[in-house]
Amino acid sequence: MSQPDVSDFLRQPGEQYKATIAYDGTDFLGFQIQARGRTVQGVLEAALQKIAKQPVRVIGAGRTDTGVHASGQVVSFRVPWRHGLDDLHKAINANLPPDVVSLEISAIAGNFHPRFDARSRQYRYTILNQPVRDVFKRRYTMQVSQVLEVERMQRASLYLLGSHDFASFGQAPQGDNTIRTVTEAAWSVKGPEIIFEITANAFLYKMVRTIVGVLLEVGMGKFDDSEVKRILLAKDRASARAMAAPHGLCLVKVNY
Amino acid sequence: MSQPDVSDFLRQPGEQYKATIAYDGTDFLGFQIQARGRTVQGVLEAALQKIAKQPVRVIGAGRTDTGVHASGQVVSFRVPWRHGLDDLHKAINANLPPDVVSLEISAIAGNFHPRFDARSRQYRYTILNQPVRDVFKRRYTMQVSQVLEVERMQRASLYLLGSHDFASFGQAPQGDNTIRTVTEAAWSVKGPEIIFEITANAFLYKMVRTIVGVLLEVGMGKFDDSEVKRILLAKDRASARAMAAPHGLCLVKVNY
Repeated sequence: MSQPDVSDFLRQPGEQYKATIAYDGTDFLGFQIQARGRTVQGVLEAALQKIAKQPVRVIGAGRTDTGVHASGQVVSFRVPWRHGLDDLHKAINANLPPDVVSLEISAIAGNFHPRFDARSRQYRYTILNQPVRDVFKRRYTMQVSQVLEVERMQRASLYLLGSHDFASFGQAPQGDNTIRTVTEAAWSVKGPEIIFEITANAFLYKMVRTIVGVLLEVGMGKFDDSEVKRILLAKDRASARAMAAPHGLCLVKVNY
Repeated sequence: MSQPDVSDFLRQPGEQYKATIAYDGTDFLGFQIQARGRTVQGVLEAALQKIAKQPVRVIGAGRTDTGVHASGQVVSFRVPWRHGLDDLHKAINANLPPDVVSLEISAIAGNFHPRFDARSRQYRYTILNQPVRDVFKRRYTMQVSQVLEVERMQRASLYLLGSHDFASFGQAPQGDNTIRTVTEAAWSVKGPEIIFEITANAFLYKMVRTIVGVLLEVGMGKFDDSEVKRILLAKDRASARAMAAPHGLCLVKVNY
């Protein structure tokens, strides 16, 4: 892999690429770059800068919080590259740390924007429902000792489906409203794991973790399943007290 | 949970307990306590000392190397304890770090010794056979990009069964010979994972990782499956060059 000439950078800002990436969020202060601290965007931009020999801006589909994982985050960036797509992909992965990987890369025409162009996002929350800790799953699941009533949680989740004002469940970015459309909210059981999958056109900040926090309280029998409806109608961030830990959460897929 | 009286320690050295423990070996310098560095024995003894308010010695069934995991390590120790077994178990887990857990504990009569009394040990080695890294499995599997011929590896493994001088595959503790009896050596495929399970009365130092290293070379087509027989018969540590990385290895079970 030879380096592109300096003259290339003067002639063109580089083609646009779209990449699907996965990361173990445990050792990151979230996706979005910050003045201090290790972020996913930060290590992606550092890897691309090393390859491109110039600063590269990375845009992500979802700004996952500290400790939240992704198995299907989508990012875009522009780099000048005169070799094959496969070589670019290998170069990126060779420059990323062990807890971030690019799963797929493609050249993309036009002005693709991973966040604004996304039709929907799917998140997964994994609960390890057993009394004893699991040292191998501890980074990717939230352990809950108390037996959960999954059917109650599933019934409660149905109130989330459709377009609602989710003001009780999270914060909108500045200038945006709090109405979102949830198209999937389903619990499933796989051995000791209880898995929640939720898809929406977009999510508010902390929305999935707050929803899971409330549904867990329903599953523990603290509230009836209609509690979700009550909280939704309140349209008040203070009405949903619970929030599930970040390490059970994973951004699974972004649909375009 | 109240503290036992000081007089208890004078009257009795404590009952003996047997515990089955699991650990994520990634951040440990192996099981055995050392002058410096974090070890599994070290954190177990620290937890027990906190509970017993006196130094406690922990004996383990297998001295796993740096980076090697366990889902069924067995340890024993003596502590004075006037409450129930369940309370002791909870107290131990409450004092252990997130990467070590006690799965089961029992009081054990007589002079039980986890290492000398063990009839056999089972280890598991997990290979992630795919071209791309997996950020979630990276701590517990060894990724191999090249396609492996599992049937060849299985055929090669058959040479290991029975009692042999394994001098080529590892080092014996001082004063011990290098003859061991392998009773199970089986490969299986589970999605992208290729799993090796091996049981023997006991193992030499580095024996499983060296066996896996050689079998991987066979699986990659570098050698015929009879290479294992040739190396066995050489009885020379220098004849087995390969050694698989520690993070794919896990001590699964100790049989008594």
